[in-house]
Formats: sequence, C-alpha cells, structure tokens
Amino acid sequence: MGLIVQKYGGSSVANAESIKRVAARIAATKRSGQQVVVVVSAMGDTTDELIDLANQVSPMPNGRELDMLLTAGERISMALLAMAISNLGLEARSFTGSQAGIITTSTHGRARVIDVTPSRIQEALAEGAIAIVAGFQGVAQDTKDITTLGRGGSDTTAVALAAALEADVCEIYTDVDGVFSADPRIVPAARKLKSVTYEEMLELAASGAKVLHLRCVEYARRFNLPIHVRSSFSNLEGTWVVKDQPEGGDMEQAIISGIAHDKSEAKITIVGVPDRAGVAARIFQAIADNDINIDMIVQNVSAAATGLTDISFTLPRAEGSRATGIVQKLQGEIGFQSIQYDDQIGKLSLIGAGMRSHPGVTATFFAAMADAGVNIEMISTSEIRISIVCRESDVERAVKAAHTAFDLDADQIEAVVYGGSGR
Amino acid sequence: MGLIVQKYGGSSVANAESIKRVAARIAATKRSGQQVVVVVSAMGDTTDELIDLANQVSPMPNGRELDMLLTAGERISMALLAMAISNLGLEARSFTGSQAGIITTSTHGRARVIDVTPSRIQEALAEGAIAIVAGFQGVAQDTKDITTLGRGGSDTTAVALAAALEADVCEIYTDVDGVFSADPRIVPAARKLKSVTYEEMLELAASGAKVLHLRCVEYARRFNLPIHVRSSFSNLEGTWVVKDQPEGGDMEQAIISGIAHDKSEAKITIVGVPDRAGVAARIFQAIADNDINIDMIVQNVSAAATGLTDISFTLPRAEGSRATGIVQKLQGEIGFQSIQYDDQIGKLSLIGAGMRSHPGVTATFFAAMADAGVNIEMISTSEIRISIVCRESDVERAVKAAHTAFDLDADQIEAVVYGGSGR
Repeated sequence: MGLIVQKYGGSSVANAESIKRVAARIAATKRSGQQVVVVVSAMGDTTDELIDLANQVSPMPNGRELDMLLTAGERISMALLAMAISNLGLEARSFTGSQAGIITTSTHGRARVIDVTPSRIQEALAEGAIAIVAGFQGVAQDTKDITTLGRGGSDTTAVALAAALEADVCEIYTDVDGVFSADPRIVPAARKLKSVTYEEMLELAASGAKVLHLRCVEYARRFNLPIHVRSSFSNLEGTWVVKDQPEGGDMEQAIISGIAHDKSEAKITIVGVPDRAGVAARIFQAIADNDINIDMIVQNVSAAATGLTDISFTLPRAEGSRATGIVQKLQGEIGFQSIQYDDQIGKLSLIGAGMRSHPGVTATFFAAMADAGVNIEMISTSEIRISIVCRESDVERAVKAAHTAFDLDADQIEAVVYGGSGR
Repeated sequence: MGLIVQKYGGSSVANAESIKRVAARIAATKRSGQQVVVVVSAMGDTTDELIDLANQVSPMPNGRELDMLLTAGERISMALLAMAISNLGLEARSFTGSQAGIITTSTHGRARVIDVTPSRIQEALAEGAIAIVAGFQGVAQDTKDITTLGRGGSDTTAVALAAALEADVCEIYTDVDGVFSADPRIVPAARKLKSVTYEEMLELAASGAKVLHLRCVEYARRFNLPIHVRSSFSNLEGTWVVKDQPEGGDMEQAIISGIAHDKSEAKITIVGVPDRAGVAARIFQAIADNDINIDMIVQNVSAAATGLTDISFTLPRAEGSRATGIVQKLQGEIGFQSIQYDDQIGKLSLIGAGMRSHPGVTATFFAAMADAGVNIEMISTSEIRISIVCRESDVERAVKAAHTAFDLDADQIEAVVYGGSGR
C-alpha cells in the first residue's frame, strides 16, 4: 500500500462545491488502495479578508497575533473538507499544523520548518483514516506560539510532511495543468513538460515561475521526494519534479527545458562609486542587514581617469524605495555621485540542465535577442541558467524569440516553464 | 493588584469598530492597575455562518470536525482583539482554549470542563501582558482533540478560568444592563437588580432567564466566585451574582427577587396509563436514554374504577416530536390509551430566597393569577421557586399580574429577573 500526500490550494477549495469536488477526488485516491494525507490551504480569498480585518483594527498588526488570525483560514477549510469526505463514507480527521507536528522557528509570518513529528498523522493513517492537515502553519519550538510559513507555505507543509512520512509522492494540485516551457499566455505554443529536475525547477522558481515555491522544491530535493504538479480540475498527468530526467525516453534531452520571465523587479544603479576594496561589501551588507534580497549585480570596469565605477543591482520592486533610502544614507560615508532607480525592467531566464554539455547556448540566445531588437542591459549566469535584464516592454517579444530559437515550439521536445508577474 | 476576568459576547465584538471599543475598555481596566484576562466569543454571526458552511458540505457534520470548524470563530475575534489592544500601547497575547489549559471531556459539541491548567496565562500575566482567551472551546483530556462547550460555553470558560486563577471577579459583558426583576419588554416597570444569590440565579436561568447560562452559575457557586453581569455599551454598574445578598442594605430582603418566563416548552400528556409500580420509571428512563431533558412532571390520582391515570410532562419544544415518538413505541409494552401533544403552553416562575421564611406566597400568587383570569394547568415548586404552566397566550398578562402582586413595580425593592423565548 502506497502513501500519497496531496496538497490543494485555495482556488481548489474556494466554496462548498469545490470542497465536495476535492473530497470526491481524495475519496477516489483512498479507495484505490492508497494511504492519503491531504494538505489544504485557506478557502479562496479568506486570507486576504482576514488581513483586511486586521488592518481595520490595527495599522501594524502584531506578528504573533496576525499568525493566530490567519491560521483560522486553514482551520475552516480543513474541517469542511474532512466533513465532506466523511459524508462520502470514509473517515477523515483534520489536524492543525501544531497537531500534525510541524515544528518551526519563531519568526512570525515566515517561520521555517525545523522538525516534523507527525505521530498523530501516523496514528490516523494506521487506523485507516484520511488525515487532513492545515497548510502554511506550524508551532514554534521555543515559544510554543502558532506560526505561519509565509509565501508558498502550504506547498512546504506538504513536502515536509511527505518527506517525514516517507510518502511515495507529493501531489501539488493547482489551477494549471503542470509546468510549461513558457507562460502559455505569452507563448501559445508552450508545452506542458512531462518532467523537470529539482535543479531546473529551482532555477525556474527563482527566475519568476510561480507554479512552485523555491522553498518547497529545495525541501523536496534534499529528501529526494518526487513532486507531481497537476490540475485539480482534470485527471490529466501533470509535470513530475524529480532528481534526474527519466532515461531511455523517446527523445533527446533538451538543451533548454524552459523559459521563465519576471516583471516584478526593479534596478538600482549607484553612479560614480570610488573603486576601492570594501565599498561594494559596505553597500550590500547594509541592504542585507535590512533583510532585502538582491538578485543580479553588475559592476562596470572603472574609468582609469577618475577611479570611479557604477554598480547596478536588481531587487523586488516592493523593496525599491526602502533600498534606495538605505543606499542614500551611505552617500556621505562612501562618496558616490548619485542613485538611479528604474522599475521598467524585465528579466528573462533560459533554464536547462543540458546547457552544461552544450556550448554555444549563450551565442544562440544573444543572437535571437539581437534579431528581435531586444537590448540586453544586464547578464547573469549559473551552470544551468542564463538570465538577462531588458526593458519591461521587450519581455514578451524576447520570450517568444527565445522559445523559437531553441526549438521549444516543436512537438518533439519536452521542455519547461513560464512565470510572469501577477500569477 | 487585583485580577479581573472579563468576558465579551459576540455582539460586543461584532465588527472592527466594536472590537476597538472593547479594546479601549480593556486597556482602561489594565491601566487602572488590575491584571486582566479576557474571554471572547466569536464575532457576531460568525458561528452561524460556519454552521451554514458545514451544512453545505454535509447534511450531518461530524462532531469532531464541527468543533474544529467552529473554534476558528474565536481564533479570529481573539487575535483581532489582541491586535487592537497592542495598538493602544499595551501588550496582549491571545490563547486558544487548548493553550489556556481548558481541559474537557471528549463529548464534541457539549464537552464539560474537567480541569483548568492556565500556566501560559499566568506567565503572560506575570510578564505584564493582558491575556485574551478563546471562549467556548477546550481540548479533550483523552483524545487531545479540540472540543466546544455548547450553549453558554464562553461564560463557562470565563468562570472556570476566573476560578482557576483565583480572580477577584468575573465580569460578564452583554448587551443588557444586568439582571432584571422581569423581562423589561413585558413589564416596563421591571428594575435592574443590584444583586442576586447563586441559588436565585440558578433558578432564574433554569426557568427561562437567558442572561446567564445555568452551567456558568453552577461553576461560580461551586468556587464562590462573584460574577458581575453588565453592559459593554455603558459604564453602569450591573448585577452582582454572589453567595449571599449583601447585609445591612437599606431595604428589607424581598420575598420574590424576580419573575422568569419561558415560552420554549411543550407538554406531552399520556392518557390512560395503568397505575402500577414501574410504569412511570419505564417511560422517563426511555426518554432520558435519548438525552432529552424533562422539566415538570404531573401525575393525576388514578380513577378507582379503572386503575388508570394520566401523566403529563413538559420539555423543550425542539424535542417534542422525538419524545412523542419514543413514548409511542412504548404503547404496546405499557398499554396506555393515547398521547396528547401541546405546544401552546407557557411557564411562569417566581423566584426568591425570601420565600423560605414567608408562608403565603403561593396563595398570593394563585390569587393574582385568578384575578388576571389565568388558568393554572401544572404546578411545580422548589424551596425558592414556584412555577406554573398556563396557556402561552396568557403568559405576558400573568407576568405583569405577578410583578404587581409582589410589589416588584415599586421603587424601594431590589429584586430580580426576566427571560422569555427568543432572547
């Protein structure tokens, strides 16, 4: 008998009808002879509604209390789901994050899972019940206070539980059919991928693909747990996220698995920075101290005549004004000339494990960009990724051109992803 | 430094504005130098909305899961209240029933408190924080599942916590000014009582007064904990529920403290029951086995010629058809003639500790009923209570007549209560 962990997002349990539909799917899985653990998010817009209520009583809600408040959302959806399953003649028991043994740090709003002790879940499974677990929440090891895991939290709960329970697979149900070679809204010829590796999925997630959160993929890779991303609205096979691409397939490994893009970043350029040791470190330490994540960094060669250089970096637009303020405060100490802020940029990333053994990818990519009239402003690479920054208005044209240049439009290639802002 | 437990019902925290108003009241109490523990119910109609959702996914929601669902209600109100208090510059921490150490039986939907271990609350108080506790909920000692305490549950939580913490007083905030000598909607001259004894309050609650639940008064009496029932919409002194009426007051102890009425009961009469030992026991055992609470019972003297008698009893209307069915099934075994069901009855109760030392109360009462043209159908008495059953349509006239007959309308008497259906 296998053990499956299934995770359903808020859009899959938005109302009573959806909950009954999901209950039927879970019951079918259980009746097929599997042990089933289900992780569920809050219904539809519940979380936003609760945040709205919090803002009505306090302009700056206390973190501990905001976590207490938000965790009511999954409590509601999980109890309703358990009832709906009971109504189909199967036993289902719901468990809060704390009851399920999701032990975390005490950083409210973005706690990290540090241990999983799912004895109550194992008991329920042993007694033949389906366990329904609240996603996104846990309990702090030191304070015993209720915590939430932040963005992508329910996916992380699912993967962490699946790893602790040594499940065969963690199925992540969503409102799309799987992981695509590019955002289908931009590239109509984009194809659903049969599988991607953890590494590729990590790069895709980091580059703007929204289908899975970075943390959950990291967790799955660490425990070598297969993830199956699929739609809760169909029975179609989705995309498997696994350690290695399956061998002996009927196709050659694609050089590029997928193309991700991201329109949520901004660029800050510090002009006329004295080119001496320790200056860049001083700047980025100040930003890191304020908990702002930097993405790409570029520094020009300094002009010999002046000994000055320019430093550019990208970061989430939401942090733009805060970061600008932090850098501004360093002007007296460092003595740079000015700061430029640009929130009209876009990022495009090619991802593919095949890149390692295929030289020339960069040349092909840049040629395609040139042909499409896309000006490259910044470049960053990893072993299996090439990212460029261009004008935001050029992003869609760039994605299409790259998708074609690497033959991803063709039927015979199984490759990967998409992303985009507002997903 | 004193310790006060305050309980706010759903109507006191119905929206963000009310929550901020209650937060200000709590902050004022804390700033006056008291330690404060607050027990809060779910916001306004939240519980009804959650029950409605449950009914949408299952016609017969599982008890464990219904409790899990409903407890989300207080989780929301308590977190919001804690945030609102923090916003006023005081520290407030919210605790679920489980975190507050409310240990119960595992009877879902109407668990009973069997222990209170409020170490986390004591810690919070010692650190100068205000503790906000979810009412109505606890955790089962054996299964560790989340439970709810049923009707009046939040009042019970407040009193149980106050007793465990050895609080000076438990303040129950509601939307009326206190306990009245009769329902002010029926008797405009009804007066707010300064104080009533536990015994009187128990009889009042059992006789239809809705302001406090029986269980919470029982609990307070057991621990000799003073309850102060007052309005959350004013700063007026309310009604104290205490062991003894304060001595040395400027008035004589009233014979009758208050008049309660109840229009929520029905009467079942079993006609032509063989008058032999064990028959009544058989009937009432069958009803008790089905968890139906009986109120008054009357059995006529049997007619010598037939050896048959009639047995009448009252019970909640909501249980009427179920009880009728149970009795019907016994017809073959017992051999009675027929069953009559009457849901047009009303009950009126005079309550007063002074009754013990004043003979003649019954005579005065019955004379007043006769003068008012109210026909008495059943009578039941305790040491400090006389209850009658009459036509439902006669109840209001009967309450007014009794209120006048015992001089409760007069200014110089401090006496008690009211009640009524639909309160």
